[in-house]
Amino acid sequence: MWGRVCCNLAGFLTLSLGRSPVVIIEELNYHFGHDASRFSGNSFVCLIEIYKHPKEERIARTWGTTAAGLPYVDEAITDAGNWLIGGDLEVIETVKYHDGLDRFRLSPAELREEFTRRNADAVFAFQLRNPVHNGHALLMTDTRRRLLEMGYKNPILLLHPLGGYTKADDVPLSWRMKQHEKVLEDGVLDPETTVVSIFPSPMHYAGPTEVQWHAKARINAGANFYIVGRDPAGMGHPTEKRDLYDADHGKKVLSMAPGLERLNILPFKVAAYDKTQGKMAFFDPSRAQDFLFISGTKMRMLAKNKENPPDGFMCPGGWNVLVDYYDSLVPASNGKVPQAVPA
Amino acid sequence: MWGRVCCNLAGFLTLSLGRSPVVIIEELNYHFGHDASRFSGNSFVCLIEIYKHPKEERIARTWGTTAAGLPYVDEAITDAGNWLIGGDLEVIETVKYHDGLDRFRLSPAELREEFTRRNADAVFAFQLRNPVHNGHALLMTDTRRRLLEMGYKNPILLLHPLGGYTKADDVPLSWRMKQHEKVLEDGVLDPETTVVSIFPSPMHYAGPTEVQWHAKARINAGANFYIVGRDPAGMGHPTEKRDLYDADHGKKVLSMAPGLERLNILPFKVAAYDKTQGKMAFFDPSRAQDFLFISGTKMRMLAKNKENPPDGFMCPGGWNVLVDYYDSLVPASNGKVPQAVPA
Repeated sequence: MWGRVCCNLAGFLTLSLGRSPVVIIEELNYHFGHDASRFSGNSFVCLIEIYKHPKEERIARTWGTTAAGLPYVDEAITDAGNWLIGGDLEVIETVKYHDGLDRFRLSPAELREEFTRRNADAVFAFQLRNPVHNGHALLMTDTRRRLLEMGYKNPILLLHPLGGYTKADDVPLSWRMKQHEKVLEDGVLDPETTVVSIFPSPMHYAGPTEVQWHAKARINAGANFYIVGRDPAGMGHPTEKRDLYDADHGKKVLSMAPGLERLNILPFKVAAYDKTQGKMAFFDPSRAQDFLFISGTKMRMLAKNKENPPDGFMCPGGWNVLVDYYDSLVPASNGKVPQAVPA
Repeated sequence: MWGRVCCNLAGFLTLSLGRSPVVIIEELNYHFGHDASRFSGNSFVCLIEIYKHPKEERIARTWGTTAAGLPYVDEAITDAGNWLIGGDLEVIETVKYHDGLDRFRLSPAELREEFTRRNADAVFAFQLRNPVHNGHALLMTDTRRRLLEMGYKNPILLLHPLGGYTKADDVPLSWRMKQHEKVLEDGVLDPETTVVSIFPSPMHYAGPTEVQWHAKARINAGANFYIVGRDPAGMGHPTEKRDLYDADHGKKVLSMAPGLERLNILPFKVAAYDKTQGKMAFFDPSRAQDFLFISGTKMRMLAKNKENPPDGFMCPGGWNVLVDYYDSLVPASNGKVPQAVPA
């Protein structure tokens, strides 16, 4: 499916339909609801199918709701065309985005090669779309510790941030990549045992459905352990005051879905800021009052207001990147901070 | 799942919760949205789970829409409780409905035994919720002919009408069973090579989702061929003027769904009334004007008005059952024919 998404379909369509690539790209933008022209690789579609776009059914089956306000639906489905095109691709040339981040865009095959080169005997993947704070880092280093205890000699972490569409209030990819680099520079994660690569998928916020894609794609990229938290790829219900999905559903689906048998699911432990230790630690319910939960919204608000989080929440280098990002957003004339555009 | 559906949970709940079966049955009626007291077998739940009833998500994922007016949703989900109970059952005693039709209720194991007893070397299943007309019969006899041509010596038909909830304007089960018996008596289907049994599932009208359950259940009952038509288990969109599902989607899903590899899917050919031959025949688009399509709605209207369909549409014995059924519906004081209650 990576091959399907990251391709230039224009070549094929020009060949078979005998029409100008510009017209075709315009049509693709319309049909797919995003900027098809950003893909500059040369690919070839061997077998294609053109089929009706059953929008309501697609939304209902993917998200388990048709309520208004699903971010990816608003972004890419509602205004898309009524027909879709699909098929098998032969990718002839590597896709380049020319946005300064292409060195982080390793294909599944390149990732597998990298793990071999590093003599990995276990690869554990961490999906994220947010800056890495020390709670995330604790999870990843603790996972490595557990794998070593299980007898693996060289477990390698695949830190695999999502590179496609995210919600407007998420931190854009280019800034997240800067933040991740700082986290490695500051030694919060060990560069020797960490591979950072961009996972070029858009974020659907489709919970138990999407987490299967997240997991399957990481199997293809060479991972055999996958860290899954509470409510993976979930979000609040767009029109009701509750989570859209049951918090345990995603993990349960991963344990049952056909085709994912090869992946070992590692449940996420909840980390929070331990006020007694002054650092992120695994939450201990027996002394709940000692812990502080700092949500993504809270974190973004602190960085926006140039306030500092408690010491030990995030490495200073990483935090400064976030502050710089919010600094870079020049307030519009109406006084509102403009919505971020995905990098 | 048959075992799960056709059971008496009251015994278990009484044991574990120490409460009166009457109260429990009342609660089950509430939770499950149907009449739990109709099940009189004794079963035992070994492992149970009580979980939230995510109604919106369940509806969206099952039907691909949340539009108002889905028959099974109105029947069994909307007014159901907010918690569900599930688990593995040990069925200790055969479930009896005591409605005069129990001799038709063969369990999957009993069906497999029956096919062995008849020395079947192929079993082809036909799912239906309507009276059998000669177009259906043509499909079934033609399927048998094709299986004989493929080299099978004794293909047996499993005529497997749906026994649970159907829409109020469908013909009730007891009348359909009478009609099916007439079809066998009149020799339209051969009793030697046909097993008639009730499939005790409610009809969900959930198209591509439901057809997988229909197919999987028939594998468990010993079938290795399954006849699938246009838009299986489909219906019109409840609020828009179109079919709810793509007509080919169900068939496509069956060819791809994990766990259904053992079942050979036999596409349904379209049969219609051939005016030149005075009988039901496979539709020939090159002489479309010679054919008459008689829909279920049309058929029901003719029987209601005691009009006869064209000769050769249905055997006379079977047709008379339908006329008797509509005769049996005494118009209410408002002049309307009462809605049928599923038998």
